[in-house]
Amino acid sequence: MSRVMAPLRSIASRMIKQRATIINRSYSSAGDKLIDLKVNDDTGVATVTMQRPPVNGLNLELLQQFGSTLDQLEKSKCAGMILTSSSPTVFSAGLDITEMYKPKPDRVKAFWTALQDAWLKLYGSSFPTVAAINGHSPAGGCLLALSCEYRVMVGPKFTIGLNETQLGIVAPRWFQDSMRGVISLRQAEMALTLGRMFSTAEAKEIGLIDEIAKDKADAISKAEEFLDKCSNIPAGARKLTKLSFRQGPLEWLQKNKEADLNIFLSFVTQPKVQMGLEMYMASLKNK
Amino acid sequence: MSRVMAPLRSIASRMIKQRATIINRSYSSAGDKLIDLKVNDDTGVATVTMQRPPVNGLNLELLQQFGSTLDQLEKSKCAGMILTSSSPTVFSAGLDITEMYKPKPDRVKAFWTALQDAWLKLYGSSFPTVAAINGHSPAGGCLLALSCEYRVMVGPKFTIGLNETQLGIVAPRWFQDSMRGVISLRQAEMALTLGRMFSTAEAKEIGLIDEIAKDKADAISKAEEFLDKCSNIPAGARKLTKLSFRQGPLEWLQKNKEADLNIFLSFVTQPKVQMGLEMYMASLKNK
Amino acid sequence: MSRVMAPLRSIASRMIKQRATIINRSYSSAGDKLIDLKVNDDTGVATVTMQRPPVNGLNLELLQQFGSTLDQLEKSKCAGMILTSSSPTVFSAGLDITEMYKPKPDRVKAFWTALQDAWLKLYGSSFPTVAAINGHSPAGGCLLALSCEYRVMVGPKFTIGLNETQLGIVAPRWFQDSMRGVISLRQAEMALTLGRMFSTAEAKEIGLIDEIAKDKADAISKAEEFLDKCSNIPAGARKLTKLSFRQGPLEWLQKNKEADLNIFLSFVTQPKVQMGLEMYMASLKNK
Repeated sequence: MSRVMAPLRSIASRMIKQRATIINRSYSSAGDKLIDLKVNDDTGVATVTMQRPPVNGLNLELLQQFGSTLDQLEKSKCAGMILTSSSPTVFSAGLDITEMYKPKPDRVKAFWTALQDAWLKLYGSSFPTVAAINGHSPAGGCLLALSCEYRVMVGPKFTIGLNETQLGIVAPRWFQDSMRGVISLRQAEMALTLGRMFSTAEAKEIGLIDEIAKDKADAISKAEEFLDKCSNIPAGARKLTKLSFRQGPLEWLQKNKEADLNIFLSFVTQPKVQMGLEMYMASLKNK
Repeated sequence: MSRVMAPLRSIASRMIKQRATIINRSYSSAGDKLIDLKVNDDTGVATVTMQRPPVNGLNLELLQQFGSTLDQLEKSKCAGMILTSSSPTVFSAGLDITEMYKPKPDRVKAFWTALQDAWLKLYGSSFPTVAAINGHSPAGGCLLALSCEYRVMVGPKFTIGLNETQLGIVAPRWFQDSMRGVISLRQAEMALTLGRMFSTAEAKEIGLIDEIAKDKADAISKAEEFLDKCSNIPAGARKLTKLSFRQGPLEWLQKNKEADLNIFLSFVTQPKVQMGLEMYMASLKNK
Repeated sequence: MSRVMAPLRSIASRMIKQRATIINRSYSSAGDKLIDLKVNDDTGVATVTMQRPPVNGLNLELLQQFGSTLDQLEKSKCAGMILTSSSPTVFSAGLDITEMYKPKPDRVKAFWTALQDAWLKLYGSSFPTVAAINGHSPAGGCLLALSCEYRVMVGPKFTIGLNETQLGIVAPRWFQDSMRGVISLRQAEMALTLGRMFSTAEAKEIGLIDEIAKDKADAISKAEEFLDKCSNIPAGARKLTKLSFRQGPLEWLQKNKEADLNIFLSFVTQPKVQMGLEMYMASLKNK
């Protein structure tokens, strides 16, 4: 009997502990610019900064703005993109939990669709992409990092991982595919079933990140070095080679967008999931 | 000409050398309890011990009892399973060769079906599984270990591997898939084409096992540590995440059970295979 | 604007720098024996030496002779093949560029078909294969090495890689599959999108080669050691196990030979590709 209750108590306690990482207070309003875009005219490299305090929770507006930014970069044939965060401690805490609690049907559909579209554009971008991970990067934050072509992470104190199972959530297939493109099948199964968060040293060892930087400036500089190597490669051949590697996961989501949306909707509207979210949000307010 | 004969002589010589590993004297009778099950009431962890002297040869009865045990654990929502052996030197020597020599049609069909069913239940179990590999683990023994989610092996003197090709046998696709879930495609191709047996140090290096233990008690203790980590993860999300990683191999066998059985039957009934088995069994008796 | 031109200038400059590697002067005529075959009667091991000076450019005749040699070895049930080069500095510089410049329709079709056929025979050979890589091995040279089952490379000064993107070319899917059978998905995506050439030390580290040799004799000797291990394995089981690992890529090309040929033809006949080849060949003559 204690075995049945233990995981539930454990979830509650973990949710409270992870508050600093997951909380997404609604500091932003609809008109805010949640994505900052700066392009270096010499190199053509675009720096895209998520700036939704306090933890870059991925809500509908941020995801839509991110998708539009990627469209814009695609049209301008940018030389490469660096994705980073304005926060000194968090890259992105992942999906904004308030989008999932007592959601309005239209908005929650738009929310998940915006996430799908942003991922399709990022994972399948024609230009090279690097994540300059300058803070914690759980769940959806890790997904964005994994979908880039190269990862530089500020160490040693931040963590990264797809920790969905820790909160009772199954990472969708395209989250799993994104991780499978980066680390081995064995490491991915263990990381995802345990919902494991990795230190930068651990992440480097299994290949989840490519380089460790000492601070954000160093991360940006290392990201630029990678993009500089890419700039020597004819863009058309580079793009087609990248897409042939990513074709499987991209095609899967393109063909299964509706089914994937329905799985999410039927999960999020379950009474026990709503109750879990309610308890979690209450615990945050009481702190 | 010497090139043609050399492999045959080599097989015979190897079969004799491997006698200690492969021999499955029929010490057990139909009523024996070939699988021991103990559940720790505090942790909910089940320890499943194969106990068919001398080398846990996987015969029909052992496989059926193992399948039933897995069903029982599935119903009881056990917290995790540790698979180990009562032998001090052998985890399992693999399939019992006497099941394949001059087999009765009904029994040999039931035998292979029991192996398929046991694998489907083990590979796709909803509870976490660890192999505490306290002895040699060739062929079918290695398959059982690979199908668990974590492997702790007593070192340094035991060996593990899918060595089927050494005996002129092609490991079925699901054996190969089980290895591919654990080590790289490159390592799996080399291991399987060469039928290579790995020392614990070699197995650890390529990821075929996760940890080396100094003795059985240490192996069990390390297995419990892994299961303790799993116990912090909500069971439903963990299970679905695990199954999404293992869906491909599981679905393949579910859809191809009949074809896979027929391949085995047509192989095992070949006169030259029967002759090989006869020579092998004769060589054991003469020792 | 400079961003658009830079890659083109970069290609030209790189093409000139890579001249030593890529140039395929037509030293050979139609009657030449471009492939040397020697079989060791004691071991049954065949040594196949590419001997088309100066850099073993893969032209129609070499590929056809290589295909015929593989057929011959298949029929003779050879114990294994070592693939190497008569050049002291180049294993093979890859496809002969003169086959692609202003090609005659019939010959260029025959050329690509000969490459497809040679690959199908090499990748799916029933006998074990080792590349003794005694010199630089870019592009098509790397493909041949990757298609063998084991790679020993003379170090430290030679390089290896599928560098097609550097020249604005997309490596076909079966080139990519050949690399994916040897290194991780992550490493393959990075290697192919960047068209990276690896030093022997780098290649060894990521598994692109299996061993480093100090000279050609040492490479041959190490190759023989690998084949000696294979000779202990019953040939039929070894072959079927190998093919089950390579079935996916082999079947893909068998089913898509025509489509793959058409992609190549439509690429190579593009005016801008022809112009690039013309500039490149002119740059070689002017040196």
